[in-house]
Amino acid sequence: MPSLTLADLQAHLGGTIRGDGNVLLNGAASLEKAGPGQLGFLLGRKFLEQARASAAAALLVPEVLAMSLTEPLPQACLVVANPHACFARALALLHPEPMPAPGIHPSASVAADCSIDATARIGPGCVIEAGARIGAHCVLGPHCVIGAGASLGYACHLHARVTVQHGCVVGDRAILHPGSVIGSDGFGLAWDADPGGGHWLKVPQVGRVVVGDDVEIGANTTIDRGALDDTVIEDGVKLDNLIQVAHNCHIGRHTAIAGCVGIAGSTRIGTYCQIGGAAMIIGHLEIADHVTISSGTFVAKDIREAGTYTSVQPLMRHADWLRNAAHLRHLDALAKRVKTLEKQIADQPAPTTPMERP
Amino acid sequence: MPSLTLADLQAHLGGTIRGDGNVLLNGAASLEKAGPGQLGFLLGRKFLEQARASAAAALLVPEVLAMSLTEPLPQACLVVANPHACFARALALLHPEPMPAPGIHPSASVAADCSIDATARIGPGCVIEAGARIGAHCVLGPHCVIGAGASLGYACHLHARVTVQHGCVVGDRAILHPGSVIGSDGFGLAWDADPGGGHWLKVPQVGRVVVGDDVEIGANTTIDRGALDDTVIEDGVKLDNLIQVAHNCHIGRHTAIAGCVGIAGSTRIGTYCQIGGAAMIIGHLEIADHVTISSGTFVAKDIREAGTYTSVQPLMRHADWLRNAAHLRHLDALAKRVKTLEKQIADQPAPTTPMERP
Amino acid sequence: MPSLTLADLQAHLGGTIRGDGNVLLNGAASLEKAGPGQLGFLLGRKFLEQARASAAAALLVPEVLAMSLTEPLPQACLVVANPHACFARALALLHPEPMPAPGIHPSASVAADCSIDATARIGPGCVIEAGARIGAHCVLGPHCVIGAGASLGYACHLHARVTVQHGCVVGDRAILHPGSVIGSDGFGLAWDADPGGGHWLKVPQVGRVVVGDDVEIGANTTIDRGALDDTVIEDGVKLDNLIQVAHNCHIGRHTAIAGCVGIAGSTRIGTYCQIGGAAMIIGHLEIADHVTISSGTFVAKDIREAGTYTSVQPLMRHADWLRNAAHLRHLDALAKRVKTLEKQIADQPAPTTPMERP
Repeated sequence: MPSLTLADLQAHLGGTIRGDGNVLLNGAASLEKAGPGQLGFLLGRKFLEQARASAAAALLVPEVLAMSLTEPLPQACLVVANPHACFARALALLHPEPMPAPGIHPSASVAADCSIDATARIGPGCVIEAGARIGAHCVLGPHCVIGAGASLGYACHLHARVTVQHGCVVGDRAILHPGSVIGSDGFGLAWDADPGGGHWLKVPQVGRVVVGDDVEIGANTTIDRGALDDTVIEDGVKLDNLIQVAHNCHIGRHTAIAGCVGIAGSTRIGTYCQIGGAAMIIGHLEIADHVTISSGTFVAKDIREAGTYTSVQPLMRHADWLRNAAHLRHLDALAKRVKTLEKQIADQPAPTTPMERP
Repeated sequence: MPSLTLADLQAHLGGTIRGDGNVLLNGAASLEKAGPGQLGFLLGRKFLEQARASAAAALLVPEVLAMSLTEPLPQACLVVANPHACFARALALLHPEPMPAPGIHPSASVAADCSIDATARIGPGCVIEAGARIGAHCVLGPHCVIGAGASLGYACHLHARVTVQHGCVVGDRAILHPGSVIGSDGFGLAWDADPGGGHWLKVPQVGRVVVGDDVEIGANTTIDRGALDDTVIEDGVKLDNLIQVAHNCHIGRHTAIAGCVGIAGSTRIGTYCQIGGAAMIIGHLEIADHVTISSGTFVAKDIREAGTYTSVQPLMRHADWLRNAAHLRHLDALAKRVKTLEKQIADQPAPTTPMERP
Repeated sequence: MPSLTLADLQAHLGGTIRGDGNVLLNGAASLEKAGPGQLGFLLGRKFLEQARASAAAALLVPEVLAMSLTEPLPQACLVVANPHACFARALALLHPEPMPAPGIHPSASVAADCSIDATARIGPGCVIEAGARIGAHCVLGPHCVIGAGASLGYACHLHARVTVQHGCVVGDRAILHPGSVIGSDGFGLAWDADPGGGHWLKVPQVGRVVVGDDVEIGANTTIDRGALDDTVIEDGVKLDNLIQVAHNCHIGRHTAIAGCVGIAGSTRIGTYCQIGGAAMIIGHLEIADHVTISSGTFVAKDIREAGTYTSVQPLMRHADWLRNAAHLRHLDALAKRVKTLEKQIADQPAPTTPMERP
């Protein structure tokens, strides 16, 4: 790990130093675990006591919090306006990824007519098929498969056993995690009658997956190639683990999608959306820009306006659930009973009061 | 890609030609993207204007639509009775999969006593263990693992890094997508008391997975081997990506299951079922033939009759959801309050009218 | 397979023999499929008739059931107090896993400075990176990747293509199924403003995954490394297939989690919990010890007390669902209408009875 002073960090991140800018840092850790030589992160007021007690050598502190402190923190501090972005950048500076030497591991299988930049690293067991193109400074971990005619842009990092199927295109600086699959066949089936009762015919999937720049794709996530047109993942999209993106989906730039989400075929998701874990979106929908979908939500209709959308059942003790959920099967009947009551009340003569009586 | 005339297609697909049957085709594309030499697909009336504007050289058109046209389409047309099946077949004719030359890649690890047909293709890094059998015209992509004693039938296509564990049987013409796992251990646990509070014992899983003919299994889908008996996937079943099929499930022929579905242990699903994405089916259930389960649906009881079944929450704006969902925890109380009201109304004396008054 | 007498089994499992203890067993099977030489399992009274009709050579029978039989079973029986645990142990004795010879397959890529115990088996295509440590009697199937500085304890069994990323620690006797990924990056993103509308910055994930002893992890399950601190999986935890465990989760010992579950970041799950398939747990929660979460349940708040918790929609015929679910969007309005009715009824004068009339 590199050694940097707090002042070095300031040179990269901006902000102002409180205390000793020469304190030497060789890593970062949580407030609880940080020790000498380590940077800690005070990302919110609720961690203030923990920060005061931390053995961290220095702290990154949000400006808004620093301004409100009545007594200074015991550590040297770098006070910044945008703490989350600085948190990310400081970690990248203090924990740079090791960059393996360029070259093709002797156990890799590389087709004669593919193009691999001399600065790229091709790991053990990788298979690069005919016509594939690997850009400068790409790093491919063990057992990656780049299909015929597929291409990776500049400085992509593919961890172990990533599969990019034939013809797919990945832009610059992609990060693809282990087990992810780009360009598997979409689930295209056509029903074919036959005397035995019929069967499914496979619809060949001749589109591609086209992935923009600065995209991250999580472990064991799958993105299907288009049926005729392409499946498109725009610039800056971030996908977590175990996500399924079906054929012909289009995900707008800078949309972030958490783990276990499924998106059925031909759905278009706008830009700057945030989709919570395990949300499920059916096919052929349009989701507007700047939409937030809560975790666990099922989306079965277009969302045409920015905002937050939800559809989940609240958690209950099982005994309570048994009692309550039974009524969900009779909600229509219940609503009708309420309507009947309303009518009965309305049809009653105005209640007579003693004064009105004859 | 091959070059075929529209008349060549007609020879394979049937139907009638309107316009020039000699138009040459070398591929297919969407109506929007198709250009000269490409076949387009007009699969429904709502795409009619798009079809008229398409640069496609020829169109595949459903008979029922063609008969109702008041003015002919500008392109040569092949009019067919079963458009979806013809769509699949035309794509397969115009975009045939490249068939790699037979042979075993030198980097594959092949046990001495396995049986690999001379027409099969074994890709780089594949591992074929003792006693495994690979049928004629099988194609195994990179890094497939065929466990001891497992077998693949005729003309199976395994894409990159498919794992078929020991003893499992796959029929003819299977298509297995990257990362799929056939025959992982079922989740079999037995509770064992001990002075420390108890622990789980693994129940060895000694059954197999038996997959019929013409089955397709999606990327990163997992199918567990049976505990004692086998897990069975019958002929013609189609499984999308990221599906979990637990031990001892039995899936009837020609059932199609969309992505992200989970099926817990020992559940039997009938023939010709359609299960929407992210549906979840608990264990030890029986699902009848010809059942459709909507996307996102949770199935916790047997389904004994054909039909469509659903259990999802409708999507709401988050603020509406907050207001509405709170009542789900008190639905039983609400129903009781309605009952009380009904009783109160019923117990009221019939409203007296002025005429009746003494 | 080994040949054991029923008396041999008794020596390992305890219990009492009814009938011929010398009956020879070479395997186990279901009551329906068991034949001569095979052990069957009578695990509950409802299988009694099936057991009587079974061709099994011997049966394992729960004590409580054996005591209540009015006529003896036709087979030799081993009567045991803890049938499920004995079921697991008997299967392990009758179907021992083949243990491959120690050694490193010549196609494996092994860094010069890693440490591999001489009793370990490293399969074809495995990649063991610098500084990794592989304990005694570990068995690694084909294409496993052990990242730099990662370690496996004693007698771990990694099936095909398991990935353990750099620095992660796995304890003794772990069983990791195909495609599982330990130590992929957590989904850590920081929003960074820019003139173009902003973008996500990757937060480097510098924590590890630390897995205890006797842990089993299912096929294609993913466990992310911590952001700063570690993700922790304690001793005896059992995870099924296609589970996502996000960064900094902590799963207590002997908790069992079924397939397709997602657990978002920093959530702590207690000891001895059972989580049903496809449950989804949001981030930063605390789940107490001995909590059971039903299949398909969405957990969005802390669970502080042991017990069973549920939140799912009941299944309906689609037509019923359409009728009922529409009201979920108006549940708040319905509750208000009931309240109004209650007020109207309460405000009515006490109904006059004939006696009270003037």
